[in-house]
Amino acid sequence: MPTDYGTTPLEGLPSRVTIWEVGPRDGLQNESALVPVEVKVELVERLVDAGHTIVETTSLVHPKWVPQLADAEQVLRGLPRRDGVRYPVLVPNERGLDRALDLGVTDIAVFASATESFAKANLNRTVAESLRMFAPVVARAREAGLGVRGYLSMCFGDPWEAAVPVERVVAVASRLVRLGCTELSLGDTIGVATPGRVAAVLDALTEAGIPVERTAVHFHDTYGQALANTLTALRRGVTIVDASAGGLGGCPYARSATGNLATEDLVWQLDGLGIDTGVDLGKLVETSAWLAAELGRPSPSRTVRALTGG
Amino acid sequence: MPTDYGTTPLEGLPSRVTIWEVGPRDGLQNESALVPVEVKVELVERLVDAGHTIVETTSLVHPKWVPQLADAEQVLRGLPRRDGVRYPVLVPNERGLDRALDLGVTDIAVFASATESFAKANLNRTVAESLRMFAPVVARAREAGLGVRGYLSMCFGDPWEAAVPVERVVAVASRLVRLGCTELSLGDTIGVATPGRVAAVLDALTEAGIPVERTAVHFHDTYGQALANTLTALRRGVTIVDASAGGLGGCPYARSATGNLATEDLVWQLDGLGIDTGVDLGKLVETSAWLAAELGRPSPSRTVRALTGG
Repeated sequence: MPTDYGTTPLEGLPSRVTIWEVGPRDGLQNESALVPVEVKVELVERLVDAGHTIVETTSLVHPKWVPQLADAEQVLRGLPRRDGVRYPVLVPNERGLDRALDLGVTDIAVFASATESFAKANLNRTVAESLRMFAPVVARAREAGLGVRGYLSMCFGDPWEAAVPVERVVAVASRLVRLGCTELSLGDTIGVATPGRVAAVLDALTEAGIPVERTAVHFHDTYGQALANTLTALRRGVTIVDASAGGLGGCPYARSATGNLATEDLVWQLDGLGIDTGVDLGKLVETSAWLAAELGRPSPSRTVRALTGG
Repeated sequence: MPTDYGTTPLEGLPSRVTIWEVGPRDGLQNESALVPVEVKVELVERLVDAGHTIVETTSLVHPKWVPQLADAEQVLRGLPRRDGVRYPVLVPNERGLDRALDLGVTDIAVFASATESFAKANLNRTVAESLRMFAPVVARAREAGLGVRGYLSMCFGDPWEAAVPVERVVAVASRLVRLGCTELSLGDTIGVATPGRVAAVLDALTEAGIPVERTAVHFHDTYGQALANTLTALRRGVTIVDASAGGLGGCPYARSATGNLATEDLVWQLDGLGIDTGVDLGKLVETSAWLAAELGRPSPSRTVRALTGG
């Protein structure tokens, strides 16, 4: 069975896309089994070997909240430093930032919500309270020269509030940019978005003066919509796409939020379109097959299954 | 968990899409277990109750080749006739057409290949030989006033030949139209297509004078690409999309060809875009959940799984 069916570009798309790989953090934080440090370090190393330049590695959250990532410091200390490769780390508060700075982290991310319901469920705070908590984190990180990504969850729908007004997304996104975030990642945390909604949110952000070059998209494949939404975002000028090796992970606080977009399914699409990612599909598939064996369950990625007969 | 997250249109898409439901034929012909006639009839009835107006029901192929559909005549006799509902039937040759005419079938389909390798594997004939075999079938069916759909497999890639030249697709498609087919269905039989390829094939067909209003697309989700490809086809003017209830089926003669596009995943997208299909998502999901229980295995549709907690 061949894997190369040729390359055919499509008008209106970028020539290069940066994949922000979230599997080690977003994926493994949702594993019920504890994954050994060595496996986590090997996963990141394999992903970098496959060509990734951004691998979100772990979260410096209190182990009480995410016990799966209690080994964050060991993982970070285990990673080889390589030129041009960034290992962003999720940081919930100033204590997390202190740890990040001690560890020599160069890129952090904060995790905000477009809806009050999810802010309450995930952070036990109102949206305004969570932004006040992030303000000194972002300011101090920027002073220290770090890149700061602002995740914005539930941008396209919320399990408690259903439809989320576009104005709500624009309001919180604008606050994150004013705090000093150098990049935004718009999350479809429960995977319900469809392409018109994606375009509407991106258009509204552009109109509000938020540069599309600094806006990433983070789609979940819960309803099978992630790649159609990605294609729509690329047409709107987005060039940073979040994906998770083998489709690992989801969100532990939102029911049915399984199914991060699998990096392999994304790379299949971008390779076919002739869009450069710098990532080698064969090496990614090998990595996800290896990880699936370590975790003892098959990858949910359709591409991984097709290419490994799984 | 709500199921309505609002409707947001996107420019350049049609206001209405006709779904050509293939599950009872294309899905069940690939089931290893024999499904009772009563279950098949109930499946079609449920799909019509959900709003479908075209349900491809069975195949009048010799039972030696597809034993799963040996009950074709019983199924067809069991279906209630309803105004505005069509039950197309796959017909391989003149003997199949004779049976179709005896049974009062109003719509048939023939199954051609864009590649020699698949024509050989699936029909044991060259492409030219298979077209010669279809010629009298199409001619006699048209004389009898039947609608005749021409399936064209492997339009975007082939497991033996890898990339399939666009000119090859145009050549065989043009032959099918000249034979008298009233509609074409372009198949991505192994699910490898990406959006640029889809656009290129559709553009080439339009340039060759084949009307896009009579061209359907038939995508497989083997690599997770089906909905992004569908979106691209809709932008090119296609308004007829093949899908299979619950994602049933594939192609028995092509490895890794599991994964017809699930009707529910398609309807989720079209509902979100405000594109009318006439089909009720809730009833579809109930039907696929019922069928999954009958077949003893979960639906591969992501939407069915998300909405049934599967």
